[in-house]
Amino acid sequence: MLKNVVLIGFMGTGKTVIGKRLARELGYEFVDTDSLIEKHEGQSVPEIFRNLGEAHFRKVEKRVIHQVSDRDGIVVATGGGAVLDPDNVAALRKRGLMIGLAAQPQAILSRLEGQRDRPLLNTQDREGEVRRLLKHRRPFYAQADNRLDTDRMSVGQATRKIQHWLTTRLSHRVIVKLPQNPYEIEIGWGILEAIGHRLTRLGLGQKVAVITNPLVRRIYGATVLRSLKKGGFDTFLIEIPDGERFKTARWISHIYDALIQHKFERGSCLMALGGGVIGDLTGFAAATYLRGISYIQVPTTLVAQVDSSIGGKAGFNHPQAKNLIGAFYQPRFVFTDVKVLETLDRRNFISGLAEVIKYGMIADAELFYFLEKYLPKIIDLNRYYLLPAIRRSCEIKAQVVQEDEREGGRRKILNYGHTLGHALEAATAYKRYLHGEAISIGMVFAARLAHDLGLCTQKTVHQQETLLARAGLPVGLPKHKPADILKAMTYDKKVKEGEIHFVLADRIGHVQVRSVKQAQIRDLL
Amino acid sequence: MLKNVVLIGFMGTGKTVIGKRLARELGYEFVDTDSLIEKHEGQSVPEIFRNLGEAHFRKVEKRVIHQVSDRDGIVVATGGGAVLDPDNVAALRKRGLMIGLAAQPQAILSRLEGQRDRPLLNTQDREGEVRRLLKHRRPFYAQADNRLDTDRMSVGQATRKIQHWLTTRLSHRVIVKLPQNPYEIEIGWGILEAIGHRLTRLGLGQKVAVITNPLVRRIYGATVLRSLKKGGFDTFLIEIPDGERFKTARWISHIYDALIQHKFERGSCLMALGGGVIGDLTGFAAATYLRGISYIQVPTTLVAQVDSSIGGKAGFNHPQAKNLIGAFYQPRFVFTDVKVLETLDRRNFISGLAEVIKYGMIADAELFYFLEKYLPKIIDLNRYYLLPAIRRSCEIKAQVVQEDEREGGRRKILNYGHTLGHALEAATAYKRYLHGEAISIGMVFAARLAHDLGLCTQKTVHQQETLLARAGLPVGLPKHKPADILKAMTYDKKVKEGEIHFVLADRIGHVQVRSVKQAQIRDLL
Repeated sequence: MLKNVVLIGFMGTGKTVIGKRLARELGYEFVDTDSLIEKHEGQSVPEIFRNLGEAHFRKVEKRVIHQVSDRDGIVVATGGGAVLDPDNVAALRKRGLMIGLAAQPQAILSRLEGQRDRPLLNTQDREGEVRRLLKHRRPFYAQADNRLDTDRMSVGQATRKIQHWLTTRLSHRVIVKLPQNPYEIEIGWGILEAIGHRLTRLGLGQKVAVITNPLVRRIYGATVLRSLKKGGFDTFLIEIPDGERFKTARWISHIYDALIQHKFERGSCLMALGGGVIGDLTGFAAATYLRGISYIQVPTTLVAQVDSSIGGKAGFNHPQAKNLIGAFYQPRFVFTDVKVLETLDRRNFISGLAEVIKYGMIADAELFYFLEKYLPKIIDLNRYYLLPAIRRSCEIKAQVVQEDEREGGRRKILNYGHTLGHALEAATAYKRYLHGEAISIGMVFAARLAHDLGLCTQKTVHQQETLLARAGLPVGLPKHKPADILKAMTYDKKVKEGEIHFVLADRIGHVQVRSVKQAQIRDLL
Repeated sequence: MLKNVVLIGFMGTGKTVIGKRLARELGYEFVDTDSLIEKHEGQSVPEIFRNLGEAHFRKVEKRVIHQVSDRDGIVVATGGGAVLDPDNVAALRKRGLMIGLAAQPQAILSRLEGQRDRPLLNTQDREGEVRRLLKHRRPFYAQADNRLDTDRMSVGQATRKIQHWLTTRLSHRVIVKLPQNPYEIEIGWGILEAIGHRLTRLGLGQKVAVITNPLVRRIYGATVLRSLKKGGFDTFLIEIPDGERFKTARWISHIYDALIQHKFERGSCLMALGGGVIGDLTGFAAATYLRGISYIQVPTTLVAQVDSSIGGKAGFNHPQAKNLIGAFYQPRFVFTDVKVLETLDRRNFISGLAEVIKYGMIADAELFYFLEKYLPKIIDLNRYYLLPAIRRSCEIKAQVVQEDEREGGRRKILNYGHTLGHALEAATAYKRYLHGEAISIGMVFAARLAHDLGLCTQKTVHQQETLLARAGLPVGLPKHKPADILKAMTYDKKVKEGEIHFVLADRIGHVQVRSVKQAQIRDLL
């Protein structure tokens, strides 16, 4: 899931020094292939050249490069001659973005000043030899995905340039391939200002209403409105107070009134700028105003980015049950700037991680192990780790939704942890737990239930519980009365004709849907 | 569009006497082929046989039968030997249902007593000849669609039997062929009691909520509930007060509350038993409860039967505009008992005729001319004329909907007469006009506008206006201020980015959509 960064180029272009700094900035590990070769052979590169010959050096280099290429999350500095072998290039490319560092012969010579031990430059005419080698190797270095001239650049400057480029490379598009209304999820870092430009490609009408809450408006409202205006749209804001308890019919009505006041027409468009509440209300208003107008999701919380903004579930709460009223209504476009999570409060962010972990459990062991391995980096909002995790989550959600848009079958697996989770939220009047927190407890419960039913090993239960706990999510089963929780469960939509359907993991990365007797659930509670 | 009824059978089985009575009951014209032949030849059948021979008689008979077969709405009594010629049978079948009358030889002989002039029975052994002829002709009479033994039956009894059978033959199924959710419209006469049985074939859950209004409940509530119970369903009633002003968010909420109270689940089902208001509210509740459950339309007004029950438009009114909030959400099944129109008040029935005439104008000249020809019979609720008109209307609506489910293009033609019609309703606070009445005025206006723009002839304008007026619909343009009407028009959904789109007929049976300048509309108003 993680890309490597591979620095290629001539000696003296700064591969090692820039690589080390870059690795520190990215939170990656730095690897120098020459050093690995020296370690392996127990002697220095010049010694290997002298004692065993270049051919031997190249053989060992190739082996080292292949080993290195199987790893992830590393910055690799390669020897100057490594990319002359197409085999090496193919291996490095497998998981790596290749950056070619370059410099003028003069700069190279001055940087190599005092370094006698360069086996290929043991000659009187160092400059001539540098020029000759450079000329020969130029086409090989040109294989890089990007090129950086380091002549007049400090190490810091060069590193920032590469980071900037890597950030743009994090952008990714996921298509939700629904036959009637396919749409794109664009995921990137720091892309929010481009929203207006991006929307011009969708063929929308003139009017866009941005629906948001006061908190998000204060931080991102001006940026989004400015960008939309630049894109040529007529815009205005509709504010909904912040919080689940405002996801009600009353606030849907408020949106309708504003749309009528601004004479919204069938070609007009809504934009949800916020978390799940904003997204659900906006989607429902869009689904029902004039029997359906377009809407765009611009999710600003982690749970919205990986879950609620995708798949068209829209609706509001009824005093008796959450999300009781709603519709399946797909957005025209989902625009996800992961950088906005920098302003999300920690508890909300962690809560969203529960859904990311859920995706690993239900559909993708690779994601689960990635989270296990890099959890601290993700919690630190290191974009190079966070973006792949979000992207993969979106891919899984899109995949499930396109297999079953209206939750007739497979989409039910997304409710892993939700049967108990929703009941917990309801039993505590949506005040005690954030959604992801309740889902975390729900997943722990589901795993134990699965183990009780002989579906999964104790190890699986333990692995999931450990990861959730490490993320800072609650894992202790609730102390509410079992009867209360059961009652809340039966109000939930996942109840079919009196039976309780549970999504249960049989191993990491795979689940099944089973109907479970209420008595069995009561016992475990 | 209309079927003929063709009576075949041996002499003395009652073809003429039953045919005459039947024609009176059906409101059809009675035609006796032998009489036509006599008229044509200027002599009686026995005379033709004697003077010109049987071969000549058969030649003339064939010509007469072919002429008769091109007409519609007639009861035809054929000569006893007519069906021996396969050519005659094919012609009679083209538009006719064939009923074979039969009787025992003894009955036939006693009925023919005193009739000397039967050319084929000029023999001593009348009984033997009858038996011989009957034996020979039996396979030919067996070609009938239905057979009736008239031995011990009065003319009245025989007529009622045939009528009953013809009524069952009026039942018809129209399929709305939507790729995601195709469904059937079942149209019949007196079929309401079968609703419970009919629903058992749809694979629904146990629970069905019948949503209706007090008036309809009093007349049909018990019948429907009893039938549903017989079909094995758990049912209860939800009552909405009668009238457009109750098509509001408040009454949608009322439905939600009742569904929650009865623990409705995803497999549960709603049934709209009523007119457009009930259908729209039920459809919207079904679309949004638990993000969508099944619903059945059982329309009890003409406008609901031919229009609002088909195509999935659901929603409610906003204080500012009618149908402003809604969804496209298809029913699982539409069950249309035309007999219930017998209890519909006259004004409402006539209002519904506006939509039937609309279908003729926009898509089917044949339907339009059928209405021109048989309007009095339809207004009399003669089932044999009314059912074909409703069936054809449903077919047109289904066809348009399946070409354009979400009103992106072609479906707009259904809004013929609606641009002004909706505006009139709004400008008079939905109090002065019934929907069809407003649409009637709207169609008159649209026709004049089309003529002004050079799209259609004055004759077309006149034909439409005449038919509407004959039906008892208002055709006078409104006396409201043009500015008020224009303002109401721009609140309407058919307005796109400031322009007013009009559906305009260029001839009977064909329309086009055009954007018209507001000034042009003001002038005509």
